[in-house]
Amino acid sequence: MGAPAGLPRIVYQQVIEAALREDLGRAGDITSSAVIRAETRCDARIVAREPGRMAGGQVAADVFRTLDSGVVIDIVILDGEEIAAGDMVLKLAGPARPILAAERTALNLLGRLCGIAALTGRFVAAVEGTGARVADTRKTSPGMRALEKYAVRCGGGINHRFGLDDAVLIKDNHLLVAGSVTAAVERVRAAVGHAVMVEVEVDTLEQLSESMACGVDAVLLDNMDVGTLRRAVAIVTGRSVTEASGGITLETVCSVAETGVDVVSVGALTHSVSSLDLSLEVETVHNA
Amino acid sequence: MGAPAGLPRIVYQQVIEAALREDLGRAGDITSSAVIRAETRCDARIVAREPGRMAGGQVAADVFRTLDSGVVIDIVILDGEEIAAGDMVLKLAGPARPILAAERTALNLLGRLCGIAALTGRFVAAVEGTGARVADTRKTSPGMRALEKYAVRCGGGINHRFGLDDAVLIKDNHLLVAGSVTAAVERVRAAVGHAVMVEVEVDTLEQLSESMACGVDAVLLDNMDVGTLRRAVAIVTGRSVTEASGGITLETVCSVAETGVDVVSVGALTHSVSSLDLSLEVETVHNA
Amino acid sequence: MGAPAGLPRIVYQQVIEAALREDLGRAGDITSSAVIRAETRCDARIVAREPGRMAGGQVAADVFRTLDSGVVIDIVILDGEEIAAGDMVLKLAGPARPILAAERTALNLLGRLCGIAALTGRFVAAVEGTGARVADTRKTSPGMRALEKYAVRCGGGINHRFGLDDAVLIKDNHLLVAGSVTAAVERVRAAVGHAVMVEVEVDTLEQLSESMACGVDAVLLDNMDVGTLRRAVAIVTGRSVTEASGGITLETVCSVAETGVDVVSVGALTHSVSSLDLSLEVETVHNA
Amino acid sequence: MGAPAGLPRIVYQQVIEAALREDLGRAGDITSSAVIRAETRCDARIVAREPGRMAGGQVAADVFRTLDSGVVIDIVILDGEEIAAGDMVLKLAGPARPILAAERTALNLLGRLCGIAALTGRFVAAVEGTGARVADTRKTSPGMRALEKYAVRCGGGINHRFGLDDAVLIKDNHLLVAGSVTAAVERVRAAVGHAVMVEVEVDTLEQLSESMACGVDAVLLDNMDVGTLRRAVAIVTGRSVTEASGGITLETVCSVAETGVDVVSVGALTHSVSSLDLSLEVETVHNA
Amino acid sequence: MGAPAGLPRIVYQQVIEAALREDLGRAGDITSSAVIRAETRCDARIVAREPGRMAGGQVAADVFRTLDSGVVIDIVILDGEEIAAGDMVLKLAGPARPILAAERTALNLLGRLCGIAALTGRFVAAVEGTGARVADTRKTSPGMRALEKYAVRCGGGINHRFGLDDAVLIKDNHLLVAGSVTAAVERVRAAVGHAVMVEVEVDTLEQLSESMACGVDAVLLDNMDVGTLRRAVAIVTGRSVTEASGGITLETVCSVAETGVDVVSVGALTHSVSSLDLSLEVETVHNA
Amino acid sequence: MGAPAGLPRIVYQQVIEAALREDLGRAGDITSSAVIRAETRCDARIVAREPGRMAGGQVAADVFRTLDSGVVIDIVILDGEEIAAGDMVLKLAGPARPILAAERTALNLLGRLCGIAALTGRFVAAVEGTGARVADTRKTSPGMRALEKYAVRCGGGINHRFGLDDAVLIKDNHLLVAGSVTAAVERVRAAVGHAVMVEVEVDTLEQLSESMACGVDAVLLDNMDVGTLRRAVAIVTGRSVTEASGGITLETVCSVAETGVDVVSVGALTHSVSSLDLSLEVETVHNA
Repeated sequence: MGAPAGLPRIVYQQVIEAALREDLGRAGDITSSAVIRAETRCDARIVAREPGRMAGGQVAADVFRTLDSGVVIDIVILDGEEIAAGDMVLKLAGPARPILAAERTALNLLGRLCGIAALTGRFVAAVEGTGARVADTRKTSPGMRALEKYAVRCGGGINHRFGLDDAVLIKDNHLLVAGSVTAAVERVRAAVGHAVMVEVEVDTLEQLSESMACGVDAVLLDNMDVGTLRRAVAIVTGRSVTEASGGITLETVCSVAETGVDVVSVGALTHSVSSLDLSLEVETVHNA
Repeated sequence: MGAPAGLPRIVYQQVIEAALREDLGRAGDITSSAVIRAETRCDARIVAREPGRMAGGQVAADVFRTLDSGVVIDIVILDGEEIAAGDMVLKLAGPARPILAAERTALNLLGRLCGIAALTGRFVAAVEGTGARVADTRKTSPGMRALEKYAVRCGGGINHRFGLDDAVLIKDNHLLVAGSVTAAVERVRAAVGHAVMVEVEVDTLEQLSESMACGVDAVLLDNMDVGTLRRAVAIVTGRSVTEASGGITLETVCSVAETGVDVVSVGALTHSVSSLDLSLEVETVHNA
Repeated sequence: MGAPAGLPRIVYQQVIEAALREDLGRAGDITSSAVIRAETRCDARIVAREPGRMAGGQVAADVFRTLDSGVVIDIVILDGEEIAAGDMVLKLAGPARPILAAERTALNLLGRLCGIAALTGRFVAAVEGTGARVADTRKTSPGMRALEKYAVRCGGGINHRFGLDDAVLIKDNHLLVAGSVTAAVERVRAAVGHAVMVEVEVDTLEQLSESMACGVDAVLLDNMDVGTLRRAVAIVTGRSVTEASGGITLETVCSVAETGVDVVSVGALTHSVSSLDLSLEVETVHNA
Repeated sequence: MGAPAGLPRIVYQQVIEAALREDLGRAGDITSSAVIRAETRCDARIVAREPGRMAGGQVAADVFRTLDSGVVIDIVILDGEEIAAGDMVLKLAGPARPILAAERTALNLLGRLCGIAALTGRFVAAVEGTGARVADTRKTSPGMRALEKYAVRCGGGINHRFGLDDAVLIKDNHLLVAGSVTAAVERVRAAVGHAVMVEVEVDTLEQLSESMACGVDAVLLDNMDVGTLRRAVAIVTGRSVTEASGGITLETVCSVAETGVDVVSVGALTHSVSSLDLSLEVETVHNA
Repeated sequence: MGAPAGLPRIVYQQVIEAALREDLGRAGDITSSAVIRAETRCDARIVAREPGRMAGGQVAADVFRTLDSGVVIDIVILDGEEIAAGDMVLKLAGPARPILAAERTALNLLGRLCGIAALTGRFVAAVEGTGARVADTRKTSPGMRALEKYAVRCGGGINHRFGLDDAVLIKDNHLLVAGSVTAAVERVRAAVGHAVMVEVEVDTLEQLSESMACGVDAVLLDNMDVGTLRRAVAIVTGRSVTEASGGITLETVCSVAETGVDVVSVGALTHSVSSLDLSLEVETVHNA
Repeated sequence: MGAPAGLPRIVYQQVIEAALREDLGRAGDITSSAVIRAETRCDARIVAREPGRMAGGQVAADVFRTLDSGVVIDIVILDGEEIAAGDMVLKLAGPARPILAAERTALNLLGRLCGIAALTGRFVAAVEGTGARVADTRKTSPGMRALEKYAVRCGGGINHRFGLDDAVLIKDNHLLVAGSVTAAVERVRAAVGHAVMVEVEVDTLEQLSESMACGVDAVLLDNMDVGTLRRAVAIVTGRSVTEASGGITLETVCSVAETGVDVVSVGALTHSVSSLDLSLEVETVHNA
């Protein structure tokens, strides 16, 4: 797999700065400032204590460089690549104070992104050969959506919509108000331009058939069992993208994918993640 | 247990606004705007699909009210209280568009905070009777530290330091630079005022004894087995706070606590959380 | 035509605050503060000096209320409605100082949005009966995209993509790098999810045929004459959305639309707009 | 004419960053990221498709460099200089992705500023030889005042006040409240320091005479015909600056200027501008 | 003296929010949250422990209301009025937690503003009868200029320019570069519009005469002794505003003013201020 | 005394940018832009006109470099060192415009920080030999707390808590609500973690004894005379930190310190400071 295309720094730089300010507070790293002299330099490395998948190497590097532009960083494992337990993922050299002061902020970001990529990678592996793609949802950490969805791509997944504004998804609550799929789709088509994809969440095959008659771009098949999904795929017959969703786990994802759906979307990719266990180890200290 | 004391809104309001802007993007909720008329009102409720513990009810309410001050919210379960599967945690009434537009942002925040509180509560329950307290770490989501640490309090835990600036924690990397516990503590005492607590992370009982001789306020006993922890507690004999840390799980926390340490700190409380599964259900729709 | 669905205030409130701060500077409205007593109240109205179309009434009202929550505003003409010369569009009552201090900021915003809506309306009227829709572009004023695209909707137009992130548009420079339409589309399909529409800008009918073979969602027919457009529409035969673009004016838009394209996009809707000429007139002054 | 003195970047950098974030959204330039490899470099140029006047070359260059500091830019035409149709105004070299991703943001800013400078230049040319200067107003795009007023200077115009706080302008609504020019000026003189210029808007020669008696620094002669302006200039006889304003066009500005007024102010310089038509052309592509 | 005209809240609200966030940090007022129940209400008052002059009553009230809109505040002494030792300046009622949490932020702001007003008032009193006015400088606290200059007005002083952009002040370093007063003034007149006042700082009577020949609006007579000032005033004879500056103290200000200068400017008004000693006293506690 | 450990730039960079924007306004330094050509370079120095102590050299340097990265700065006197009248503290070389445009902002910051360090140094010198340390309070300028407390450290003082969130200080108003020291301390101990120091403000020796029984970490002995302080120290006998506070001046501080208290805290260090008198002198001008 090729490395996923990167995000421009301007998209996430505010997240880095807010996180550093949150950790440094009003007085900065009072421990390192007291214990370490300004001139002291060190070599250090960030090591994974468990296997996973890389995501956010550039982001972590930017954390250190935001605090001190003199920190030199070598990204050893590229985004999208596998990480083995014990692997060095980043190598650092520079003034010791900012390296230690930025450590926690960098590891919090990197650990979470690698955790998401690793989990996504497991789902992607589970559906291999089925033709289905694994997608995320909007169940992301507040303020972190661009980065977390980037991590999903690093894990081999694809991104569902990024917000309420870039695609239409007509859900049960909307249908309740509109009265019918047809009414809802009509209102939407009158309002949005051609650059916007329209998807409808359907709970039943009746709703599915109505959606097909409306010519929607995609259908979200919500909480259907495998048999129903199979029937749904047969009904759609390629007229729109089919997406299965709802409580799908690593155990169930393959059987869902084998129904022939185009996309399986999994909220857990971002809402229930274990951060990858990473540590920063100072290797050598240079007192000027 | 009494409800934990609340956070002032000014501390977290920027998180809410950033999260709403992230989800609404440039065009807002294009689905709800197209499907629902501005005048349509509804009653809705947020329901838990699994058991947990409440944290962030006020925060979730503020999400809806930030988007539209006309949404009326009743917080049914108070922060710190248990949630049973199926419980209604919040009740809402008001214009339907902003209620649906704010849904995901509110649930993302509330689900994560309740997830942290629930997990913390399980750790607290596991050590009941031992006298030990359960503390969090700085392994929090970027930008969310104030809220996530609040959720830990809702779960019955206590907060370790909030950042690098409000307490001293001399860790292995600092000792590597300073040469010894004694040298590090001396530098710190010369630099910081009396309002700052000084803690040392020790890996061995020799470091522990040296720390006691320095008169530190607390010691972090890092990755020690239960036998060593017991000996450490005996060495300290109440002269400073004892904190056990390092890979502690729900399975091991009780035996760690029974060694007599004052505090058990657990990174997983915030770095590896499953969001509580919540859903917003529209109950009745009122077309004006 | 029904009123276009509104934008949530949180999407544009920062534009209002930045504009007010820009005009008030460090010392506020020194003229009004010196000449008018704090207690003086007035009735005022905003009047159009030329015909146009309403857009941004709520935004203008929010400008006054942001400065002083005590200003009472009646939006007389709703967004999307026609304005005749001399029409009162907003009616205001409240303390005179903030009404005068917010005047210029409110009129600058409202005048620009009404100007865009009026111009859009003229293009929409020009294509009436052809079945074509009029779309905007990304040639908007920096920081104003959400509002300016809202004004286009008020004028009866539709919105093209809001940014570089919510739809794919493969342009000539991309084709230059990729080598061919096919190569570019393949790379894009591998990278983006199903929620993203893919459009290709084509300069020739050969590129168009190649695009059709790739199964793209839309084609932007760039700078083609009417005859070529007609042939292009015949080639596409409904397999994707057809969009004509490039130097289209009020004089030429109808003949372009009559070729059968689905969408005509016009950069001038936002990049070359005359603000609607509006003035705020104080009607009565009440000295307390 | 010498180049106008530049603005410090800190004054406009936030406009650049907001505009880039607005266009890049949450996912960045998904087309360029998919189609172009990170290593691909290119040479490109920004070309004018119509004649105009340069303004904002440094601003446009800063847009590209804000996104990627590795883009090398040569500003070919300096601010204040004439642009002929077909002229290359900027030359760029660097990584292709950020060059294409920043293109629209840079062109939107540069096109608008050049459009303002060109229009200003036409007004300045029209009054050549009369001794009158052409001034702008506060009818600028929200958030863009510093840049748009800079563009007016590039076109040879002068700037009227930048906001409500840096000069006093007593207008009709103020006179309505104060009761008379004399009362208004007295209140102002008591309130403001000596660093503030005081101008009065007068509709009649009676108000003008009263203003002269008050010793104001400048008078705005509002919507007067040429004959009345001539009489007004005779009344003032150099005791204060005379400014003509109100619906002045390229057709009428010369006859207004010939009345002997010192300043002609024109709202259209900024509120009704056509952006200069610019395009970015990739010239050569270098695949590493 | 009438009360000085107020500042709109939008001009200083960010100062309040930044100051509250600075004091509340990540966890809020942990003492009050622990000790005081959410339901507890109190009456309190802010009392002056020394005499002074009121400035910023509204600002202080806004601090409390920003933290909790339920705090009711009565501004007892109006801005510009004298304060006697022991005077109650503000009266508060509401929930006890936010009143105590906002106390220090409100007192820091109010104490500084009252201190500036008091000091300004002493200078103004010292020059009473001379006809000279007392002006401030740009030597203000970072971020506080609008508020501190407002406090100067509350003390009866006038404001010199608010920044580098709203008036020209040609100082010694500029003359060093330009070569002469005449050259500097010519360059300035060519660059700035009629809304900008032009002042020259002169060290000698030769420079003063040259400035008069240039027709400048004001001259800053820098560090001149009383005899020289008197000669300077005689040279100017009303052709421009005369301003004396440089190390002027309460002891010397009257003799300076008696030379006939129009304005005496005093940096110490804002750069060397003792905050007025204020305290917040809780009067009664209401446990619900 | 060694130099105090520095603050990371990210902690104070926003203060610098806000201060520069405040001074540059919308149009920048219009005097320097008009008088000085962009190519003109100069050498300059910042000189102290009175003795003091250095604090903020790096901050001042960052002001100039924020405006123009081409300004080269040599920090001649290091933070914490004595300054004699006439000393050059910073040496600058670079483009003349930004050096003059940043002058006032840099001097306002540097002058205030040096003033605080100088005043702190006088208090520290006054208690030399007593063993007491001099601490600051939260009576700082809004938004400047991190920098002002840094300046206190440069003067040899220590920092009391940085905000309401990083240490507990139970004051008279809290005791009024809680009913007793014991009740207040109990509530606090139940709420806060082990990383937080708990201090009680006591007015009487009875309260002091009660505090000792509660085992608090520190006591603030408020407004006690020297005899009472001596008795208080005898009661505490090293069980907690003793801090004297309340109206302590340079005249009284030594006698207070001689009572044996550990800390003397002085609000005046930051709330009533005279800025050190500094000036920027251009030495040589280089016209390219």
